[in-house]
Amino acid sequence: MDQPSQTKNLRIPGPTPLPPEVRRALAAPIIGHRSPELQSLMSRVRRRLKQVFQTEHEVLVFTSSGTGGMEAAVANLLSPGDRVLAVSVGVFGERWVRLAEAYGAQVDRLAFPYGEGADPEVVLAWLRGEGPYRALFITHNETSTGVTNDLGALAAALGDLGDERPLLVVDAISSLGAIDLRTDAWGCDVVVTGSQKALMTPPGLALVSVSSRALAASGQARNPRFYWDFQRAMEYATGRNQTPFTPSVTLLQGLDVALGLILDEGLGERFARHEALASYFRQGAAALGLEFLAREAVRSNAVTALKVPSGITAEALVGRLRDEYGIEVAGGQGPLKGQIFRVGHMGWVTQEELADVLRALREILNR
Amino acid sequence: MDQPSQTKNLRIPGPTPLPPEVRRALAAPIIGHRSPELQSLMSRVRRRLKQVFQTEHEVLVFTSSGTGGMEAAVANLLSPGDRVLAVSVGVFGERWVRLAEAYGAQVDRLAFPYGEGADPEVVLAWLRGEGPYRALFITHNETSTGVTNDLGALAAALGDLGDERPLLVVDAISSLGAIDLRTDAWGCDVVVTGSQKALMTPPGLALVSVSSRALAASGQARNPRFYWDFQRAMEYATGRNQTPFTPSVTLLQGLDVALGLILDEGLGERFARHEALASYFRQGAAALGLEFLAREAVRSNAVTALKVPSGITAEALVGRLRDEYGIEVAGGQGPLKGQIFRVGHMGWVTQEELADVLRALREILNR
Repeated sequence: MDQPSQTKNLRIPGPTPLPPEVRRALAAPIIGHRSPELQSLMSRVRRRLKQVFQTEHEVLVFTSSGTGGMEAAVANLLSPGDRVLAVSVGVFGERWVRLAEAYGAQVDRLAFPYGEGADPEVVLAWLRGEGPYRALFITHNETSTGVTNDLGALAAALGDLGDERPLLVVDAISSLGAIDLRTDAWGCDVVVTGSQKALMTPPGLALVSVSSRALAASGQARNPRFYWDFQRAMEYATGRNQTPFTPSVTLLQGLDVALGLILDEGLGERFARHEALASYFRQGAAALGLEFLAREAVRSNAVTALKVPSGITAEALVGRLRDEYGIEVAGGQGPLKGQIFRVGHMGWVTQEELADVLRALREILNR
Repeated sequence: MDQPSQTKNLRIPGPTPLPPEVRRALAAPIIGHRSPELQSLMSRVRRRLKQVFQTEHEVLVFTSSGTGGMEAAVANLLSPGDRVLAVSVGVFGERWVRLAEAYGAQVDRLAFPYGEGADPEVVLAWLRGEGPYRALFITHNETSTGVTNDLGALAAALGDLGDERPLLVVDAISSLGAIDLRTDAWGCDVVVTGSQKALMTPPGLALVSVSSRALAASGQARNPRFYWDFQRAMEYATGRNQTPFTPSVTLLQGLDVALGLILDEGLGERFARHEALASYFRQGAAALGLEFLAREAVRSNAVTALKVPSGITAEALVGRLRDEYGIEVAGGQGPLKGQIFRVGHMGWVTQEELADVLRALREILNR
């Protein structure tokens, strides 16, 4: 078997390392996609997803990357010409803009500088001045800048809009399972995540929660879709514990095990652990004299973006970590390329692995 | 780990059983989706896919079920209002109709009775009388009826149309890797398959070959798409050995190994083996007095559809095979529900496993 070489310490902000229990589940024999075993698996996955999403609504399972789940939201909620607002704090906020534009929406873009979070008061004032909008698209945790938006405060602000409140559509691809996200309590209409970040499963599944209001909207929206269709997926999930199209069976088996591990740990304990690990890493990075891209109040507990110090290029820094220390971190994306490097600390990660990164950084910077 | 029980002899027409080498690859550690290791893996997968597809054009990799690949074809090739022809011989032929209609095409449907193949002369006459069409959609191997269309003859007939030749778009989800399909020699513009049938990999990857003509068409077509976009996928594949969005890394690792096994066996040897196994199974089924849904000349080497004999229901037959013998076969779909049952014999399958099915059928029918 022609196996690729292995990175010892995979510290990119996803895909993230897999617990051994998950890896074992991935190699289980295939089961039929219309079998009672699959239905039993799907029933358990659905129940566990609702707990992790903190929702009583359905969480749909699509076989795709997280971006597929984002496209599903756009295709199901919008008709051509709909006015929508994309609140952007980085590269993945811009993805909402491009997706909604691809589907013929009139997109207003409210962007905050890279490293800042979205200010709920500014967003509310914009909505009052420029609204109403069919939907507001936002990123919970912006992977490109290491910023976590204060989604709870933003959601609370939207409550003031009454009937003019837009559908609240959240990209939680790099937050869900690492950072508290109260889908129902905050009134999130659609929350999208991927299997490969804090959920500790390989990439290939998009998980999408759908509120009653979002489901009703999907019955009216006129953008074309078939594979992504919420209504059909909802019928199969609630009526048969199946998906309309053959799901990725091995990834479902892995996700089931990973969700069990997450719930065994406990959501509160898990968020606290991520906060503690992130805090440990940030203190260590600051002690090395490294600077953060993100303002202190909005720094993410899932990924840290650090400015590349003078005297070394981003490429050389990432390359040395990789080649000399077996540590894989990510560079900057888009306009941040060359300016920053990013270290993931979500999912299956230990303090020792972060200490390993800090030690390597110290050695490289001391040279 | 809460593992579902295992079916001993999985004989549905996909997902199909996994060779042990593939299962081991699925449990390999995750590698970064922008890493040199991923690029090396992707380079090898791309080369092997071209060999198995018998094409010199690119074969794009989408993280989705096979239906996602079909939707990619529709979204990339068509604009609203385009006239297209769907040639249907069963349930999956109807899927082309529904997909193209969902994307606003004017769909003409040329259907042949269940159990028959598409007659190339009839198709050509239709195209001459009713054309031109932007695209012709057809199923190579119709999983719902156990019929293989004579795609080579049909493609040859299309050659007579000159400039009015429609784009030829083929669903090869249950044929590619089991039944000869000469993508370039037959002038197929788009061929779609899934990882979970004759390619012996879990579900979750759609593989889509794109001819120069199809790529040019995708530059003009106005249907919305982002995740499925051919142009972006082509740039990432040829320019970087990557995919635009995080691919399902573990499934790519499995597919790489499976494609290696297929090419080691040899395409010609593999098609001959499938023909021999199918012939063995058909002879055994006929000896039991079972009747075929498909006319003899078009019976599939990937899946056999048998009529449910009198004296037993489809449900009881499928249930007994499953509960008493550990054999999982499929029932009929759509209008064929209750009328037939289907036995898959594609991919990683042995004559002994088919003999096991025949023995169980004999015992059940003798009672």
